[in-house]
Amino acid sequence: MVDSVDRQLLDILKDNARLSFADLGRKINLSPSAVRERVQKLEEFEVIQKYTLQVDHKKLGNDLEAFILLKVFPGQLKNILKKIKDYPEIEEAHRVTGSQNIHLKVVVKNQLSLQRLLDELMNFSDTNTFLILSKV
Amino acid sequence: MVDSVDRQLLDILKDNARLSFADLGRKINLSPSAVRERVQKLEEFEVIQKYTLQVDHKKLGNDLEAFILLKVFPGQLKNILKKIKDYPEIEEAHRVTGSQNIHLKVVVKNQLSLQRLLDELMNFSDTNTFLILSKV
Amino acid sequence: MVDSVDRQLLDILKDNARLSFADLGRKINLSPSAVRERVQKLEEFEVIQKYTLQVDHKKLGNDLEAFILLKVFPGQLKNILKKIKDYPEIEEAHRVTGSQNIHLKVVVKNQLSLQRLLDELMNFSDTNTFLILSKV
Amino acid sequence: MVDSVDRQLLDILKDNARLSFADLGRKINLSPSAVRERVQKLEEFEVIQKYTLQVDHKKLGNDLEAFILLKVFPGQLKNILKKIKDYPEIEEAHRVTGSQNIHLKVVVKNQLSLQRLLDELMNFSDTNTFLILSKV
Amino acid sequence: MVDSVDRQLLDILKDNARLSFADLGRKINLSPSAVRERVQKLEEFEVIQKYTLQVDHKKLGNDLEAFILLKVFPGQLKNILKKIKDYPEIEEAHRVTGSQNIHLKVVVKNQLSLQRLLDELMNFSDTNTFLILSKV
Amino acid sequence: MVDSVDRQLLDILKDNARLSFADLGRKINLSPSAVRERVQKLEEFEVIQKYTLQVDHKKLGNDLEAFILLKVFPGQLKNILKKIKDYPEIEEAHRVTGSQNIHLKVVVKNQLSLQRLLDELMNFSDTNTFLILSKV
Amino acid sequence: MVDSVDRQLLDILKDNARLSFADLGRKINLSPSAVRERVQKLEEFEVIQKYTLQVDHKKLGNDLEAFILLKVFPGQLKNILKKIKDYPEIEEAHRVTGSQNIHLKVVVKNQLSLQRLLDELMNFSDTNTFLILSKV
Amino acid sequence: MVDSVDRQLLDILKDNARLSFADLGRKINLSPSAVRERVQKLEEFEVIQKYTLQVDHKKLGNDLEAFILLKVFPGQLKNILKKIKDYPEIEEAHRVTGSQNIHLKVVVKNQLSLQRLLDELMNFSDTNTFLILSKV
Repeated sequence: MVDSVDRQLLDILKDNARLSFADLGRKINLSPSAVRERVQKLEEFEVIQKYTLQVDHKKLGNDLEAFILLKVFPGQLKNILKKIKDYPEIEEAHRVTGSQNIHLKVVVKNQLSLQRLLDELMNFSDTNTFLILSKV
Repeated sequence: MVDSVDRQLLDILKDNARLSFADLGRKINLSPSAVRERVQKLEEFEVIQKYTLQVDHKKLGNDLEAFILLKVFPGQLKNILKKIKDYPEIEEAHRVTGSQNIHLKVVVKNQLSLQRLLDELMNFSDTNTFLILSKV
Repeated sequence: MVDSVDRQLLDILKDNARLSFADLGRKINLSPSAVRERVQKLEEFEVIQKYTLQVDHKKLGNDLEAFILLKVFPGQLKNILKKIKDYPEIEEAHRVTGSQNIHLKVVVKNQLSLQRLLDELMNFSDTNTFLILSKV
Repeated sequence: MVDSVDRQLLDILKDNARLSFADLGRKINLSPSAVRERVQKLEEFEVIQKYTLQVDHKKLGNDLEAFILLKVFPGQLKNILKKIKDYPEIEEAHRVTGSQNIHLKVVVKNQLSLQRLLDELMNFSDTNTFLILSKV
Repeated sequence: MVDSVDRQLLDILKDNARLSFADLGRKINLSPSAVRERVQKLEEFEVIQKYTLQVDHKKLGNDLEAFILLKVFPGQLKNILKKIKDYPEIEEAHRVTGSQNIHLKVVVKNQLSLQRLLDELMNFSDTNTFLILSKV
Repeated sequence: MVDSVDRQLLDILKDNARLSFADLGRKINLSPSAVRERVQKLEEFEVIQKYTLQVDHKKLGNDLEAFILLKVFPGQLKNILKKIKDYPEIEEAHRVTGSQNIHLKVVVKNQLSLQRLLDELMNFSDTNTFLILSKV
Repeated sequence: MVDSVDRQLLDILKDNARLSFADLGRKINLSPSAVRERVQKLEEFEVIQKYTLQVDHKKLGNDLEAFILLKVFPGQLKNILKKIKDYPEIEEAHRVTGSQNIHLKVVVKNQLSLQRLLDELMNFSDTNTFLILSKV
Repeated sequence: MVDSVDRQLLDILKDNARLSFADLGRKINLSPSAVRERVQKLEEFEVIQKYTLQVDHKKLGNDLEAFILLKVFPGQLKNILKKIKDYPEIEEAHRVTGSQNIHLKVVVKNQLSLQRLLDELMNFSDTNTFLILSKV
């Protein structure tokens, strides 16, 4: 279903999701309309799920980024899955295997905001927090 | 430097990074050129780092996604930081605190590709792998 | 009670439990009836507990195999021991020493089926899941 | 490729892999030759990998069964994968994810034989041993 | 706000917080009144939080010093934060990230007083105690 | 050797180590010279080890405080004990029992300074870092 | 209170607690009555707490010896301390620091007796069992 | 081989290994010579391995008792097994299963002697130390 030209397109969009169909076409020797058709097909079949952006959190006043692994307390799984949607600090959340059950990526203003978030999460689960030092 | 209108713009772009300046403007009652100016300023000051996309890895033939925590062997930090760039399976890599040093997000075809990747990583570090079950 | 000829027989059957008494006899220079007598004695004294088979789970549509270690919640031991019988995904279950109490081998269709199983087990115990990558 | 009748056959053989084609046929209302054909197809496509048997290890003089998780030392993966084949005490071996790399099932005569095996394995890896208490 | 002379002053006071303004002035070539002014400003802006002292606990009859990491039980965070104030054995307490939530430094008379303290803390949290062997 | 009046004096000095002998005397109904004598005796017998101060590290430009537990690599104990003296970021260092050997308290400017410190420590030991969120 | 001759006596008794006063005296050049006096004084001051013996548990039909570390559940400390006295399988019990609270040495007939003991202990605490392989 | 009267004798000797044959006989209605015969048989068949004594270590100037679990470094097993014999602080040593390999019981004068012992052991293994708080 997805051929090698599609994969090229996806690779390019991954690096710059705002390129116009014309710019995309120039990079892979296709007409803008041929690109548009392929991209629309990739969107329709939900190969492409979302166009999004990466920001510099420090420049937005959020000094700390962290991964948090949660080991959910007995009977609290449903509650915490609902709650996760309500915290704007939580950027990403995944169910995972291992001795913990949920993996979060969070962005917070400072130590006190991280503590407030942990205080909330501690009602539902044990938490293990890994501060992000830098991107490799 | 970043005002509340900028933050609105960033929120909208986070959900759909391909919206045109006209569409963005309509959503926040600004002219396309005013939007363009703001977006360009956010790019210039590197508040916006990258426009990118999320894909459905299963539909691209990659059945397994996982987080891997690495505890780097003595003297191997520089080597592994270089190597990480070479593995296409590694989507994201961060230096972190905790009892491990590096946090990876990987996307692989199947168990054997995951094993091959782990075989490589085991030359530089202890590995702890958490299979991703679903996105919350 | 079990002599070295019996042990030879058991070794051969372990590799191919469907061999006829005649075939078994040929391999160890015994008459079919002598083999039958020995095998029946081994069954009678329950040295042989079961003839069984190994299948390729992937070919049956089950993409993931895993070991799961359970640390049972206070007061839930009896409940979980009963429940284990009801899950067809659980191939083997043993009580073990260590910081966990029960060791499972499970075969599931995919990540979502594994998640559903873990959701159930999480009512009775902490879970630690090890994905099987390959057989050595 | 594998239909519901095949699955029935596999379930029956899993409980008693030595049943004759006639006995199998009686259980699922098929002629012996139809059963034979199906079983041969399942063998041919390697859905069935092996007919084997379960024995009572205590009755064969082996008092201890255990799972051992190995965290392989840097550079020792290939060596230990080779070595594992040489130890008759090792019943099963799998590559796994988690903070360890290899999962073993072992059957040994007594504490001293377990110690001797661990002494060997300790040349290649950290070991974590879980004594099997009973089958659930 | 804090210049390099202030930092010098802070470094000297950290080694001997009882030095007179005259003595401090002599060490950094400032008049006593200039020192006084700077110190008062550092106190006013709460750069300096407290002048304190280090004692030899063994000489005061307290044989054991330890760090204790607490993993607070569900719903017990507020209770333990209040309780911590009441134990004179607890010298310092911090909220921390990691798999535990609170980090204590305690000074106790002997093993039995440590046990009594742990018995109390065990009502609110799991405890992990590290005996201090010496100061580096 | 240390009587209850001495203990009162130590408690007062712990809260404010810069109080004059006159102020100290007023608080416990002793003449300044009697206080001086007692304090000098406590210094002489090294009950008092040091007068020091607590500062607000954030106000000095150091955004992160953390505890780091080190598990020293084979043969590296002497090296790391020497090195610890050289890092100004390390506020306190203790030898401890537990599965790690050394306990540090560190104060650093930001994530990158913490990473640089960890890069150094990783030459001698495994590190486990707990970010300090607040003082209780 | 305890001099070097007493220590010699204690060392000898530790190796053979049934030696007569005459035999003890011969080994350290003292009269039987002088030895008796010293031993009685050591008993009186409770330096000697108990004369006991070491047996070969296997020869008494107990095949397994193990250490068990218990992490007591909230509110169960008193209950388990009482219960411990009732289990004849528990040879020694100590309160300890670390992430667990109680350290047991147990001697049991076989895997099933160990499982029965663990089933009981699991009502009060998490258990972590280390099988004893041999005495060094 | 060991009958119920022998077991009674062993139980009594475990509580007081210095009782005379006459005293032992009175407790179980046997003549002194019959007791002697039984005891000698138990010694001969090495059911009884050693008569020993329990002392109050604090009264002998040893303030700290601890269990230490060792995870032996690759290639160091033989060395450490030899070394263990040389440390008088080590009261008992066992090979164990679990993630560590050797279990020690040690008695030391104070924190510095414990540190010196750990410094030695750290040449051969990772150490995990549990301070004994009291006997249950």
